[in-house]
Amino acid sequence: MIERLAIVGVGLLGGSLAKAARAQAIAREIVGIGRDTGRLRPALTDGTCDRVTTDLADGLRGADRIVLGATVLANETLLPEVWRSAAPGALVTDVGSTKRGIVAVAERLAADRRDVQFVGSHPMAGSEKAGYAVSRPDLFQGATVVLTPTESNAPAAVKSVGELWTAVGARVVTFEPDAHDRAVAAISHLPHVVAWALVDAVGRFEPEAFGVAARGFKDTTRIAAADPDVWREILLGNRDAIVDSVAVFRAALDDLERLVAQGDGTALTALLTRIKTTREKLS
Amino acid sequence: MIERLAIVGVGLLGGSLAKAARAQAIAREIVGIGRDTGRLRPALTDGTCDRVTTDLADGLRGADRIVLGATVLANETLLPEVWRSAAPGALVTDVGSTKRGIVAVAERLAADRRDVQFVGSHPMAGSEKAGYAVSRPDLFQGATVVLTPTESNAPAAVKSVGELWTAVGARVVTFEPDAHDRAVAAISHLPHVVAWALVDAVGRFEPEAFGVAARGFKDTTRIAAADPDVWREILLGNRDAIVDSVAVFRAALDDLERLVAQGDGTALTALLTRIKTTREKLS
Repeated sequence: MIERLAIVGVGLLGGSLAKAARAQAIAREIVGIGRDTGRLRPALTDGTCDRVTTDLADGLRGADRIVLGATVLANETLLPEVWRSAAPGALVTDVGSTKRGIVAVAERLAADRRDVQFVGSHPMAGSEKAGYAVSRPDLFQGATVVLTPTESNAPAAVKSVGELWTAVGARVVTFEPDAHDRAVAAISHLPHVVAWALVDAVGRFEPEAFGVAARGFKDTTRIAAADPDVWREILLGNRDAIVDSVAVFRAALDDLERLVAQGDGTALTALLTRIKTTREKLS
Repeated sequence: MIERLAIVGVGLLGGSLAKAARAQAIAREIVGIGRDTGRLRPALTDGTCDRVTTDLADGLRGADRIVLGATVLANETLLPEVWRSAAPGALVTDVGSTKRGIVAVAERLAADRRDVQFVGSHPMAGSEKAGYAVSRPDLFQGATVVLTPTESNAPAAVKSVGELWTAVGARVVTFEPDAHDRAVAAISHLPHVVAWALVDAVGRFEPEAFGVAARGFKDTTRIAAADPDVWREILLGNRDAIVDSVAVFRAALDDLERLVAQGDGTALTALLTRIKTTREKLS
């Protein structure tokens, strides 16, 4: 049982975690911390949080678990103050979609004060919408949460953060921070970039074609309607890994195009068969 | 009412058209033509065709509507013999997924014999499966059929071919043959190439990422599991337009990647907003 769970940023992810923690009764006390009293109030009045505050140090006092639920850059900026205010033995995690940056900040802070630990989390759940109003207690049910521990983390700390997520219904997997950022670049950020380029390319090449678009095109480009503001931050926050993944994608595209241009039917069949096998493993 | 509808190639598309024509009673007589007596038999025994034959000239005799239901290359190869055997006034169409090639063959044939007309059709319906066994009378219900008439077609001929498709439930649109091939390259062939390259790229870049794939990646790459044999023929049959569309896609990708690499958040938001608007028009 968690004694006091402090959640900094009570939006879609932080709010959903608070609601799930309340529903599953995994914390004796839940404290919501934010910048705006008015926006914190619903989390207090609906009984999700026992207390809300805009004072970070006050909110963190005595908390044994601290979850940073703001954006990636905001969480990184807050982390030094979190470290100063956290109680001895406090365990800190976050919900950000990239991990190298915040883990590097945490490693520097941990070198100075060793009785606070940070274990990065990335719950792969969410929505194109944001804010406490769309949060819900079942958001993490069946979702995958990637943990990105480092060698400076005590095994018990990693285990405790994992248990926080499994208690709210998630499946936990572990990646190195760098591998995590490359993996989300590959499986999420690159597909968005490709879907945007595909929609843009059809408009440039033969806009009449939109009139005969069928299910295949619609499925392939559904994510191209994602929220531009959310994605600007994601793209800029993981730009190195994204640029690397685009380079690999371009090489794969070149290989395929070469076989088409050369009319190499045998090699095309072999390549498409190999790719089909890979894709079918995902269901 | 069609007097005698001859269908050359009674597979998924040809068989579905025969079944739909029977169900809607749009032809007094339906003749199925194929290369293999055994494979034609089910279309006779289930009452879809009044007659089946492996003799092309015999099957076409007296037919006022002729539909070529074989593959693009087979249809092109058959067309000269179809032209020689067709009755005066016969109207010929096809179901092939590329149109420049067969329309060019038809234009040459029409210059010699003007009492037969060809109007290209591309029903945008189908499945990754093939053969008469998977054909069904409602395949064209709600589907789009692209007609590719030329200046040498009499308006009445174009109208009659359009009516054949609307009678079986399709929506008919008209494209120039060249614009058609570019449109299907853009809206169908290019998305497949991109989806294959995406699956291939993830495997090359960070194969562990497949383990955290969520709905976005699965939607975007669903068509990467399409049948390699079917797609080898499509890719090679429309390779000029596909290579052109890949070049435009690559330019769109380069533009996006440049904004990410430069960290130009303002331009990224503007571009993603424009693309989102375009995509949302498709529903």
